[in-house]
Order: sequence, then C-alpha cells, then structure tokens
Amino acid sequence: MDVADRIETGMQRSLRFATANGCPPILANALRHAVFPGGARIRPRLCLAVAAACGDREPAIADSAATAIELLHCASLVHDDMPCFDNAMTRRGRSSVHAEFGEEIALLTGDGLIVAAFETVARETQMAPLLTAPIIATIAKAVGSPYGLVAGQAWESEPEINIAVYHRAKTASLFSGAVSTGAIASGGNPQDWLGLADALGAAYQVADDLYDAVGQTDGSDKPAGQDKRNGKPNIVAELGLSASLSRLHSLVSEAVANVPDCPGADAFRHMILNEATRLMPKTLATSAA
Amino acid sequence: MDVADRIETGMQRSLRFATANGCPPILANALRHAVFPGGARIRPRLCLAVAAACGDREPAIADSAATAIELLHCASLVHDDMPCFDNAMTRRGRSSVHAEFGEEIALLTGDGLIVAAFETVARETQMAPLLTAPIIATIAKAVGSPYGLVAGQAWESEPEINIAVYHRAKTASLFSGAVSTGAIASGGNPQDWLGLADALGAAYQVADDLYDAVGQTDGSDKPAGQDKRNGKPNIVAELGLSASLSRLHSLVSEAVANVPDCPGADAFRHMILNEATRLMPKTLATSAA
Repeated sequence: MDVADRIETGMQRSLRFATANGCPPILANALRHAVFPGGARIRPRLCLAVAAACGDREPAIADSAATAIELLHCASLVHDDMPCFDNAMTRRGRSSVHAEFGEEIALLTGDGLIVAAFETVARETQMAPLLTAPIIATIAKAVGSPYGLVAGQAWESEPEINIAVYHRAKTASLFSGAVSTGAIASGGNPQDWLGLADALGAAYQVADDLYDAVGQTDGSDKPAGQDKRNGKPNIVAELGLSASLSRLHSLVSEAVANVPDCPGADAFRHMILNEATRLMPKTLATSAA
Repeated sequence: MDVADRIETGMQRSLRFATANGCPPILANALRHAVFPGGARIRPRLCLAVAAACGDREPAIADSAATAIELLHCASLVHDDMPCFDNAMTRRGRSSVHAEFGEEIALLTGDGLIVAAFETVARETQMAPLLTAPIIATIAKAVGSPYGLVAGQAWESEPEINIAVYHRAKTASLFSGAVSTGAIASGGNPQDWLGLADALGAAYQVADDLYDAVGQTDGSDKPAGQDKRNGKPNIVAELGLSASLSRLHSLVSEAVANVPDCPGADAFRHMILNEATRLMPKTLATSAA
C-alpha cells in the first residue's frame, strides 16, 4: 500500500468506529464531512515519511499516529471555522461543517474528532503497549495547552502576542508532533528530529501565509485573504512577498540540513524538497523551488 | 490522603501541566475557572470507590483515571453552557466560562481540557504501560462518538430521539467509564461492574432531572428549570414527581444489588446509599433515602 492509501485506510477505519451503528445520524454525517475528502494530508504524510526514514519498524503503530494527527488537524479546522473564530462558510471548496450542519453539531464534531484521535492510538497500539503512552503524550503536547494548537489559537485573544510563539504553537507544534511520533513508532529518537520539525513547521506557516496573501485557495485549507479580514498576524504582511519567499527557501534548506543520520535519510531529504514545491502557491512555485 | 484530597491533588497536578509557564494567560485563567472550585466530583469519587473496592492495587493509576474523567466532565460543562447549546450564564453559582472569558476562549478551554484528560492518563500510567491503552480506550468510549457524551449531546439535534438512548449516552456513559476505569486500575474485571454502572448512571440522570424540575440549584451543576426552557427531555416532566422518585429509589436498589463480589463490597454498598442521599435535592432527600 502506498502512503496515501495507508493514510486514507487509517482515516476510514477510525471514522467507521466513530460513526458505527447507533451513532446519531447527523453527527455521523458531520464527522465524515469534516474528514473526507481530505486536504493535502501533509502532517500524516510527514509522520509516515519519518517512520520510513527510521526503518518503518512498526507500520501499524505509525499509521495510528498519522491518523490521530490528521483527525486532530481536521478537528481544529472545524472549530476554527466556527462563527466565534474565522466564521468561514467554506473549507476545501465546499461548506464548512457549521455552515452545513449548524454550530451545535460543528462543536460536537470537533470534540468527537479529538476523542477519536486518542481512541485510535489506544486501540491500534495494544500490541505494542510500550509505545501507547509516549505517542499519546507527544500528540497531546502538540495539540493542547500550554504549547500546542489550543494555546496557539488562544494567543489570538491576548492583548499582546509574540508572533513566533504564536506560530510555533498554532502551526509548528503539530508538525513537530507528526515528526516525533513517526520517529517513536519506528524506534527512532524524537530528539534527533526536533531541528527538522521546527524548520518544517515554520516553513509551512510561511507557505500558508503566502497562500493567504497571494489569493490562491487551491491546495490550501483555507479561503484566501482571511487573515487580513480577521486582523490576524501574517508573515507576508510583515515582511513583504519577496522576503517571505526567501524565508521559505531558507527554512526548507534548514530542514534538509537537519535530517538526522538514519537508514532512509537521502530519500527523506528528497521528499522534503518535493513537498516544499507542493506547499507553495502554484504561481510562486517556480521562482522558489 | 482521603478521597477528596486525592481528587483535588490530581486535578491541581493536571492543571499545573496545562497552565505551565508559556501558556496564554487568559486561557490559563479559563482552564482553572472551569475546574476550580469543583462541583460534587461524583464521577471521580465513584472511580476511586470502585478501585478501592477492587483492592486499590494501583492508586496512582486510579487517580489518573479519576482526574481524566473529571476533566472531561468539566470540558462538557464548558461546551454545554455555550450559546449554541444551553446559553447558560452561570455554573456552580458563578459565571460560566463563556460568560466570563468569551466564546472563543470557552471553546478552546473545552478542547484543552479534553486533551489534558488523555495527556494525564498517558503521563501518569507510564509505570504501568499495560493499563494505558485500556484506560484511554474506556474513557474515549465514554465521552466520544458513537455512544458517549458527544453522541448524547448530538441526539438533541436529531428530529427523533429515544430518551433511553439519549440519557445513556449523555449521562450514564461517563458513570460507566468511571466505574470501568476504577476496576481496570485495580486489576478488577470491568465487565463485572457494568450492571452497577448502568443503574447508577440512570439514577444520576433521574436525580439531575429532579433538581432541574424541583428548582434547587445547590449541589447540582446546572441552574434549575433549564431543561424546560431549552425544550430538553426531562424524566420528571414525563413521569411526574412521585413516579420519578420511585424510579430513583429502585435504580439505587438495583445498583446495590449489582455490586460484584470483591474485597470491599460491603463498604462500597454503603457508599452508594450515602451518595444516593447526597445526589437528591435536599427537600426530597428524606422521603426517598
């Protein structure tokens, strides 16, 4: 099975459990709407790529981590789109969950996906029990408080905000979680991968801000121009287009330079360079790749 | 340490991690507001009582399960109070989280508490790794989709609702989770405790509906009269006061009859009868106890 198939199979399996017979039908539809069809699945791809680079010793465990991370990403999108945050009516080219199913169901869908993420790891790691707690603790750190996604979003409510701390929590933390759990699942040392994770997370934040500023929505998970409308920090607004592109360039180089010594290091470096091109708005890809 | 101290110590410890240095200050305040001072802490008390009845073989593991269950209960209260659900401005006699901190922070506080619950179990069970996955899977089942709290809440959005299924998911499931994880943490068999968990969960739902109907708010977690205002199913509205009290009575007897053979069975039966009196609105307690 190739990586994309492994990811979709894992997502399908988790959603089958979460929407099993007896599930309220509207909630079941909303859970599926939030997860399928997916976006670029960048975080689980990264998780599986690190697991592969480390020798892919426990593919089923890596799959469970990759699935959990993508479920949490989907949960964050559902909650971020709600009226009290971005009030986004579309997501991935169709209705957002709250636009389609109402706020109550959107709130519950996000909650349900968070729970399903941890349930997935618990269920799928029973054969390798020494990995359960480290993977769950790593994922929780990436999405919770004080340093994960939840904290990142909460910084937007503070009167003063450090843009680096904000971006690290809101975006880089989940990349870091994807990298670390991929390493843990294959017996690698997550510490060896932290430099890479930080650089990649920061690169993705720049790419995301470039999408928002340049006004392309294809390939990205959010409608363009939203940061400006919502008064959110955006790197392009701060540095300008050309300096932002240079920054993306240097972060990708930094990521490549930080790939640790491991069985699949060369293939992994190659993958990062490919991903970097995929990450960028098409009109900019040629100049920066 | 007595049970109440064990619970508050566990909650304090989890909140210290979730609000550690670097946490956005408003989020940190909201997380604490959602958790302290607590309500009756019924679910974690039940979890620890079952663990004690089974011999309290791993008190630290039982504490982590009890803490996680109460964190999830607090998370559900924060989200339930939000404008798209009950729109409750007070909780436990003071402002609800969204009334005090705004909707954005309330949404994130609930999310953060859900994550903190699973993180707590992962962190505190590393010394007993064979228990991590069973406890997390059991808790996730109790709060997630298709049969837990999230599903219970989602039934309210369905055009047709089976009140028994709704109450089992919305209320009994977390009692069941408290009982099951208490047993798991002490090497008991959670299957032996299911009859008790079901009866107690149903009893608590009746008690909660009695509070709502009778109009007392002390000791309960929600303002009185809320179900009627929100058009929610309520057992007292369905059966009348006297039949509801009889039902509570017979459910408590059923719970007592279902205590399985275990080292602390007698003390546990005694505890249930005490709890049943505590559960009831004071004006009704004498007649039903």
